[in-house]
Amino acid sequence: MSDVTDRPVWRSVDGEPLSADSDALVVEEPLEIRCGGEAVSVTMRTPGHDRELALGFLVSEGVLADPASVRDIVQSAGGPAANVIDVRPAPGVTLDLARLTRHVFTSSSCGLCGKTAIEAVHHHLPPLDDDVMVNAFTLLSLPAVLRFHQTAFARTGGLHAAAVFDPNGSLVVLREDVGRHNAVDKVLGYGFAAGLLPWCGHILLVSGRASFEIVQKALAARIPTVAAVSAPSSLAVSFADESNQTLVGFLRGERLNVYTHPRRIYFAD
Amino acid sequence: MSDVTDRPVWRSVDGEPLSADSDALVVEEPLEIRCGGEAVSVTMRTPGHDRELALGFLVSEGVLADPASVRDIVQSAGGPAANVIDVRPAPGVTLDLARLTRHVFTSSSCGLCGKTAIEAVHHHLPPLDDDVMVNAFTLLSLPAVLRFHQTAFARTGGLHAAAVFDPNGSLVVLREDVGRHNAVDKVLGYGFAAGLLPWCGHILLVSGRASFEIVQKALAARIPTVAAVSAPSSLAVSFADESNQTLVGFLRGERLNVYTHPRRIYFAD
Repeated sequence: MSDVTDRPVWRSVDGEPLSADSDALVVEEPLEIRCGGEAVSVTMRTPGHDRELALGFLVSEGVLADPASVRDIVQSAGGPAANVIDVRPAPGVTLDLARLTRHVFTSSSCGLCGKTAIEAVHHHLPPLDDDVMVNAFTLLSLPAVLRFHQTAFARTGGLHAAAVFDPNGSLVVLREDVGRHNAVDKVLGYGFAAGLLPWCGHILLVSGRASFEIVQKALAARIPTVAAVSAPSSLAVSFADESNQTLVGFLRGERLNVYTHPRRIYFAD
Repeated sequence: MSDVTDRPVWRSVDGEPLSADSDALVVEEPLEIRCGGEAVSVTMRTPGHDRELALGFLVSEGVLADPASVRDIVQSAGGPAANVIDVRPAPGVTLDLARLTRHVFTSSSCGLCGKTAIEAVHHHLPPLDDDVMVNAFTLLSLPAVLRFHQTAFARTGGLHAAAVFDPNGSLVVLREDVGRHNAVDKVLGYGFAAGLLPWCGHILLVSGRASFEIVQKALAARIPTVAAVSAPSSLAVSFADESNQTLVGFLRGERLNVYTHPRRIYFAD
């Protein structure tokens, strides 16, 4: 399946009457993720890299940690069945589906708040414990790389992007999706399948805002530095703070804001 | 609870070393929505207008249609318990929780695709059947109104907005949230609680992109015209097309793109 599709459009500019044209739109389709045959999530995603999306989702939920625990991934090649993907565990492996975040949340009977949400994640994804540093000038160079590789966004204006860079600022992987969390899951799934995790000293950059969910997914991949082109939320900051992650926001032009653990940032040409 | 919170920040501009400051961040906290005591959803939202959020969520999922079916809404005033809200049905009313979209999707055993997702929604939310028109110049005037009222966005850069306008372009309600779908749910919940639904001839405007979910929520409120400041997805267009909704994208400056049912748009000063 393609990530971009052409559709009719009627345009008006400067109050002129509508004129028929066509427009490139980002494709959005549901994907049902199954684990050993059991449906665990339905997400609206941009088709492509579905195997990475399914793996990354399960990694970020703490269900998968070892590539050897996966026997295979089953997805039909076309038709509606291509929107169902099943990650099947290796023989003898039992995956703990109860770890899925949604379950963690909805089984909480004593109320929940940001603090308990953070504790629930740290129960299976402990905070980082490293003294990795990152050069501010490396960070400042990353948004231009992101934009350069955002091919589908350039055509549609409708896609989020997530990318992982190594400590020197070299691009490791970039993925686009109509959903920001899906773009991050695809990036994680790539790293998981390629045996690259944990991503010590690496940097996750997202094209938009940084929410709790984004920083949590970075922690699952053990990424110490999370950067966003736009604003972080309060819970993203609280989570990064307690997870020993450096959270950078408004990374654009010649500026950046550091919201947590600025000790990691240094300035050297 | 507040929708904006101040946090420490370390800023760097033009490669200068970090300097400590403070920054206003949008608040993100989980909300567990219950229906008659049963947990039906956990969403990361910006606190405030939680009753509207819960009602709007249930309206958009097809669970609630009549304000008289709600006995009361229970939420603690403070502490973590304030992040749990329970919509309790009136005596004798049984709400059909199986209608929840997530259930519709995950119980589908024969695969799923955009087409089946649309059919699943139309099963409980039929397409519109009206001949309402909308003035293009009215549409072009709306983004400025949205920006003027986006007070929290102006302070944080981290919020989505959704607003409903009447057929003359007068603002009925505007809500902001860290999640776009939450902003739309809050708007719907306001209309539901105030007895304003169905919103015949009205316009829904969202600050960002238009996804399947946004257009579906508009249909639940019977809104015929959905406008987005940014791009629509392919499935948003397919859904609007089959639901007899006019979907407008890239509504900004002096331009607009009409993706479905342009018959509703006319030009008159």
